[in-house]
Amino acid sequence: MEVQEGLSAAELSAWRTFLRAHATVTRRLEAELVAEHDLPLASYDVLVQLSEAPGRALRMTELADRVLLSRSGLTRLADRLERDGLLTRMACPSDARGTLAVLSDVGLTRLEEAWRTHRRGVAEHVTGKLTTDEVAALGELLGKLVDEGLLPEDACDGKR
Amino acid sequence: MEVQEGLSAAELSAWRTFLRAHATVTRRLEAELVAEHDLPLASYDVLVQLSEAPGRALRMTELADRVLLSRSGLTRLADRLERDGLLTRMACPSDARGTLAVLSDVGLTRLEEAWRTHRRGVAEHVTGKLTTDEVAALGELLGKLVDEGLLPEDACDGKR
Repeated sequence: MEVQEGLSAAELSAWRTFLRAHATVTRRLEAELVAEHDLPLASYDVLVQLSEAPGRALRMTELADRVLLSRSGLTRLADRLERDGLLTRMACPSDARGTLAVLSDVGLTRLEEAWRTHRRGVAEHVTGKLTTDEVAALGELLGKLVDEGLLPEDACDGKR
Repeated sequence: MEVQEGLSAAELSAWRTFLRAHATVTRRLEAELVAEHDLPLASYDVLVQLSEAPGRALRMTELADRVLLSRSGLTRLADRLERDGLLTRMACPSDARGTLAVLSDVGLTRLEEAWRTHRRGVAEHVTGKLTTDEVAALGELLGKLVDEGLLPEDACDGKR
């Protein structure tokens, strides 16, 4: 496809490199998490989001917003994680319509084990390929693209 | 979770910014493609990959490798795209076990329409937030993370 007005060849190339870099790194990280912990990246991401929330709990709707890799299939994914004992779901105390997902102790332990693999993977596949200055520069450039709306908010008043 | 050996706080922060930037941008691009063309980003990506292949055709296995957003559900996605007339599937002439996906004329037209939206979105949500020098720097940094194995190869000998 030829390049048209509004996006130069250099800009298009940088964007496609962005997508390729993301795909390369996330595939490697997922392969390691699955091999060592039978935990796909989407499951890992759900556990991370819950672990960082107040009371280790998030509304399902808020969890869907925070899961960075994919919004689709969160309910099915939560079904599986609940069946494996990694999280539980309960009615939100302050809102009859809301459902909270809560990280279990088993889930937290599983996450802590997987975190060692993930940390090693990020060090190997991302930061280990860049100098300290390059890591800082990359973070600064990508920060200009981030939607602040993705930053954390409270789970549900009743949980604080 | 506390930061442990192997990954500094600055490195972890840069990595998480990478994930957030990817999520922010791809969600916006997908929302625009769905609103204007009823075409999710994964479908768009399949059409792009086919359009750039020799003979507009790729083995399904090769297509799965090239689709950057997700490998899962490619068969179901191809079912839907075939039902909508955007691609067809046929036996690979040189390999009885292989199945080729081929972009149709309808699919190419649909892609060309969607490409205008996508190009405008990338210009707005990515390159428009950076200077020309920053775009170049970002591409160079991210290029260090890319797996060269993701670069194109031939679809199938019989198609050339």
